[in-house]
Amino acid sequence: MKVVVQVSEKEKINQAVKSVMNLINDLGEELEEVEVVFHQSAITATIDEGIIKPLLEKKINVIACRNSLISQGINESSLVKGVKIVNSGVGEVVRRQKEGWIYLRL
Amino acid sequence: MKVVVQVSEKEKINQAVKSVMNLINDLGEELEEVEVVFHQSAITATIDEGIIKPLLEKKINVIACRNSLISQGINESSLVKGVKIVNSGVGEVVRRQKEGWIYLRL
Amino acid sequence: MKVVVQVSEKEKINQAVKSVMNLINDLGEELEEVEVVFHQSAITATIDEGIIKPLLEKKINVIACRNSLISQGINESSLVKGVKIVNSGVGEVVRRQKEGWIYLRL
Repeated sequence: MKVVVQVSEKEKINQAVKSVMNLINDLGEELEEVEVVFHQSAITATIDEGIIKPLLEKKINVIACRNSLISQGINESSLVKGVKIVNSGVGEVVRRQKEGWIYLRL
Repeated sequence: MKVVVQVSEKEKINQAVKSVMNLINDLGEELEEVEVVFHQSAITATIDEGIIKPLLEKKINVIACRNSLISQGINESSLVKGVKIVNSGVGEVVRRQKEGWIYLRL
Repeated sequence: MKVVVQVSEKEKINQAVKSVMNLINDLGEELEEVEVVFHQSAITATIDEGIIKPLLEKKINVIACRNSLISQGINESSLVKGVKIVNSGVGEVVRRQKEGWIYLRL
């Protein structure tokens, strides 16, 4: 299965990443793809290598919301290498579900 | 596609409305219908014209949870004109998904 | 229909239980099964009889996340009788959706 994870709050970034790792350990081979979408105040995660690298190393898609980058005054050049940008995090979460991905809001 | 949006926390009302607007801008014509359900402490949004009018102007369904109105001591006559009431916000969110709507929890 | 409910935050336990009761009252016979998954800081609910018993009395499945129990230093023997344990709360939420359950994040 494929899972799209939404992370919205800055205060929950670390807990969310921990939960994503638990998800991977729990579901193992059942899990085909995982995508983590950071938006709203949680967008700051996408410029923090200590947070993002472990996710990328697990072959997780890491997505940054452009609207949130602009709101928070973060330059796209500051993103950790490997992070992809979408126009809106909410649009991405909705589109992925339309494609059949399972939704998890952390 | 059709999207049902759940807004639960008072502190997140403004951010949630901003995200709904971003969703509309991002998905454009792909989006057939959007419904925003305010419940729990976020129910207060439904008596605030400055918050609700821009949503109604975008042809978004705005829904108030009756249980939350009662909990917060808000009279139905105080609702912004155009807001619809359901017995429970959570019931609405579940029913919409049953009907095939995509879920977004802000 | 079948609904899987995710409760993540300790501060929201009481409100979440209230919403689950509202869901049951609202959907009535339409609702075949409800499962409430407590994880992250909300795991503490699973050792509190005053919170869990009313749920069990309504034939709701109450689930505790083992990862969260370990993180919070809660012994499995402290769980309210009738609570079931899964390896990870997020894995449970994803699996249930895969099985066709509707997702509600409180």
